[in-house]
Amino acid sequence: MKRQIDINCDLGESYGHFQVGRDAEIMPHITSANVACGFHAGDPVTMARTVELAKQFKIEIGAHPSYPDLMGFGRREMKLTTKELGNCIIYQIGALQAFARASNLSLQHVKPHGALYEAATKDENVSKTIVEAVQSVNPQFIIFAPPKSAMAEVATKMGQRVALEAFADRAYNPDGTLVSRGQRNAVVENPQQVVERVRRMVKEGTVLAINKQVVHLGEIHTICVHGDTPTAVELVKSLKAKLIQSKIDVKAVGAFL
Amino acid sequence: MKRQIDINCDLGESYGHFQVGRDAEIMPHITSANVACGFHAGDPVTMARTVELAKQFKIEIGAHPSYPDLMGFGRREMKLTTKELGNCIIYQIGALQAFARASNLSLQHVKPHGALYEAATKDENVSKTIVEAVQSVNPQFIIFAPPKSAMAEVATKMGQRVALEAFADRAYNPDGTLVSRGQRNAVVENPQQVVERVRRMVKEGTVLAINKQVVHLGEIHTICVHGDTPTAVELVKSLKAKLIQSKIDVKAVGAFL
Amino acid sequence: MKRQIDINCDLGESYGHFQVGRDAEIMPHITSANVACGFHAGDPVTMARTVELAKQFKIEIGAHPSYPDLMGFGRREMKLTTKELGNCIIYQIGALQAFARASNLSLQHVKPHGALYEAATKDENVSKTIVEAVQSVNPQFIIFAPPKSAMAEVATKMGQRVALEAFADRAYNPDGTLVSRGQRNAVVENPQQVVERVRRMVKEGTVLAINKQVVHLGEIHTICVHGDTPTAVELVKSLKAKLIQSKIDVKAVGAFL
Amino acid sequence: MKRQIDINCDLGESYGHFQVGRDAEIMPHITSANVACGFHAGDPVTMARTVELAKQFKIEIGAHPSYPDLMGFGRREMKLTTKELGNCIIYQIGALQAFARASNLSLQHVKPHGALYEAATKDENVSKTIVEAVQSVNPQFIIFAPPKSAMAEVATKMGQRVALEAFADRAYNPDGTLVSRGQRNAVVENPQQVVERVRRMVKEGTVLAINKQVVHLGEIHTICVHGDTPTAVELVKSLKAKLIQSKIDVKAVGAFL
Repeated sequence: MKRQIDINCDLGESYGHFQVGRDAEIMPHITSANVACGFHAGDPVTMARTVELAKQFKIEIGAHPSYPDLMGFGRREMKLTTKELGNCIIYQIGALQAFARASNLSLQHVKPHGALYEAATKDENVSKTIVEAVQSVNPQFIIFAPPKSAMAEVATKMGQRVALEAFADRAYNPDGTLVSRGQRNAVVENPQQVVERVRRMVKEGTVLAINKQVVHLGEIHTICVHGDTPTAVELVKSLKAKLIQSKIDVKAVGAFL
Repeated sequence: MKRQIDINCDLGESYGHFQVGRDAEIMPHITSANVACGFHAGDPVTMARTVELAKQFKIEIGAHPSYPDLMGFGRREMKLTTKELGNCIIYQIGALQAFARASNLSLQHVKPHGALYEAATKDENVSKTIVEAVQSVNPQFIIFAPPKSAMAEVATKMGQRVALEAFADRAYNPDGTLVSRGQRNAVVENPQQVVERVRRMVKEGTVLAINKQVVHLGEIHTICVHGDTPTAVELVKSLKAKLIQSKIDVKAVGAFL
Repeated sequence: MKRQIDINCDLGESYGHFQVGRDAEIMPHITSANVACGFHAGDPVTMARTVELAKQFKIEIGAHPSYPDLMGFGRREMKLTTKELGNCIIYQIGALQAFARASNLSLQHVKPHGALYEAATKDENVSKTIVEAVQSVNPQFIIFAPPKSAMAEVATKMGQRVALEAFADRAYNPDGTLVSRGQRNAVVENPQQVVERVRRMVKEGTVLAINKQVVHLGEIHTICVHGDTPTAVELVKSLKAKLIQSKIDVKAVGAFL
Repeated sequence: MKRQIDINCDLGESYGHFQVGRDAEIMPHITSANVACGFHAGDPVTMARTVELAKQFKIEIGAHPSYPDLMGFGRREMKLTTKELGNCIIYQIGALQAFARASNLSLQHVKPHGALYEAATKDENVSKTIVEAVQSVNPQFIIFAPPKSAMAEVATKMGQRVALEAFADRAYNPDGTLVSRGQRNAVVENPQQVVERVRRMVKEGTVLAINKQVVHLGEIHTICVHGDTPTAVELVKSLKAKLIQSKIDVKAVGAFL
């Protein structure tokens, strides 16, 4: 059977005058963009531009909702009530949908951002709140989540399509979680190594943990790459090329999930 | 011919812990609610609650987009570029649409808030930007605007439905503009006087200016009442009752425009 | 020996158009005001007005710094780094100091707000970060903290003056912590009961827990009253009068600590 | 007589995760830093780091207050009331003062940012509000303003020290105002040309307007350079070296005004 894989990247993470990332250079080499919706980044002008760029490069878009924490870029844990969290997610998805509508596009997926993504990985209540919020807007949206996470399990149980996600350039612990950013060697920087890791994730469903132990991830639907490192463009370009060379079909997850 | 009129009110203007207004008491007596979308008021929880209340009372909802100025409640003039303004409006409409969707409702209208409403009254470029933003999301939305305003003219010329709006409790200048809030007697407080003014607006399309001169407003489709004055509930309750008594049909503007 | 007590209240918690509290009515009956500094409430105009009011009523002021969370009113736990938290506190104290300077006043104290207050009660690292931030601005500022809390112990050990605080109208658990707001009977509403509890706190250093058990608080320097309940003004007025009647000297804590 | 000149630059304009500018590389070549205070840029961590850097490089610091408009980077005109504007300025100066205090430094000056700087150039009421705010905090602070501007005149009349400022790399209109950023050739990019312009500004008090006409600026105390262009570091380094070579004494304005 021919393998298929989606490549996703967090984009549209500028805010007003604060311009970050190289979105237009990354887009030709990915298939799904997670678009910031204003709570950790992404003012309205940036959102409109990002959606238009995605349209131009014919890639799929999804909402990338966050805790309401612009100062902390959504990377700080916050204790929101169920009602607060659910409505923050509905709000952000809706805002992005209007830009998609204005560009004649539809959303493909929702991927929680930063500290919210991490909370959803471990916490069933957070996961449930996210799924309910997504379903209240559109039950067709795919949710991105790590394999074996609370998020993946809860969403599946609630009847939502889930794209299982692995990280191209982040080191893994033996238990399948990510080595946290603060630690040494948390990021894999060697491009060849990154490509080899992804090939293995897609073909075998495994990754070598930071201690060289084999971690079984299972089937992976989408690979997350980062757009904000100095070598990001080169890396993602070569990644896509090598995957295609390895007879892996690189396309947006909505087309095969 | 039987006259018809819509009664609209700005609602959902709380923000997190900051609770203002008596939305649940006002709603039974109006037909259209302008819902704050987060830029001058209206956090996600407030938006969800306001939309749910509107559903419960079977009244229509519209977006009430503002300049991005929570500290100034959207009442301070801001010079945004066309691109910034248009996208701020798309963003806010979209956010509210998601709550409407979650409650199985659709938006009826868009009414710019505060300083943006005033700018649109006078400035054709601002008006054009607003109409283009609204049309990019949904060309069916009705736009609320004062009679003879730049907003009303531009929107009409651009093929948008416009609900011409008069203010129940605000004094008028002889030229048909509102006496500005800073001035003496800017607000009409006597409930009987308010009712009589509205009856005249609806039946004759005129209002007595602050200098007693007759101002020709022309046909009026919707009457704006305020929800944040101490007597708001009593006033709007008696207003609706008196209009019905005068054989005026009080219903949401989308039903007859 | 004549007993002395300070009465403190959170004030200046409006934000722009969002007006809350009855500051001018509360102030004559308290001796120290905790002034919101913009992160959970308190825009610059509100801060200036609150400081001027405090001057007029000759009461002492202190900074009431919060997590940066206007939408959550600073009541949601947030995981800030030491550097983020410390600098957020320096920022807020500084902002208030400028208003104090403009009114020819000095700050007396610092009292962390909401979720930050709770975190400091239990977490020594949070407490240490707060004390270091305060000391970097002015080592003379008194810190408000519950008796036996991490905050009180850490601050004392670091050489900072600490005002031990009890809550007039909040129920206590047998272990000396507050019954959390979500629970039944968390707030004591009967004014006479409140006065009696405070008299006992001041005279005997004890309070009856929610299960009627005696809790030993030890010496108390300041009593916190709330300004946002319907009966707040009456309660604090009668509280001050009764304390004076009981030969307790009601004055700002800086005068006797 | 030996000429003296200050070189100032807007710094600390990052915000949380949004890192912009090359502050540490610029600082060795300037004498005064205008530090963002949180309203257009400059979260608390950035402010602390910027003040510490300034201390390390022994340069003077000043507050760079803005309209409250993070999304627009303070570059959008806003109509604030006198009370709102004055208190926004007091707030921002105070916040920066606390970081200065924590680093054992004092502020030298205040320079309004972006749209507020432009408003103050033309509008006497805005200027008066700024001066009153500055004086209420510390009448010793120097105010930066263009020669012949409303700001310079009002501040001087009100007894405030004013540092007259020219722009190294911005084109001038024949009337002495800056060619606005939107226009062609608004920025002078040739480094040699920039150096020659500044030498002339300092030695002769003149600049060639965009139409080659000579503009009389009069005495200039401080030259503004930009830190956010790709060539900023090279330019400011060579500027300082050339000025020193031309026997011009480059030092902080507080030392000679």
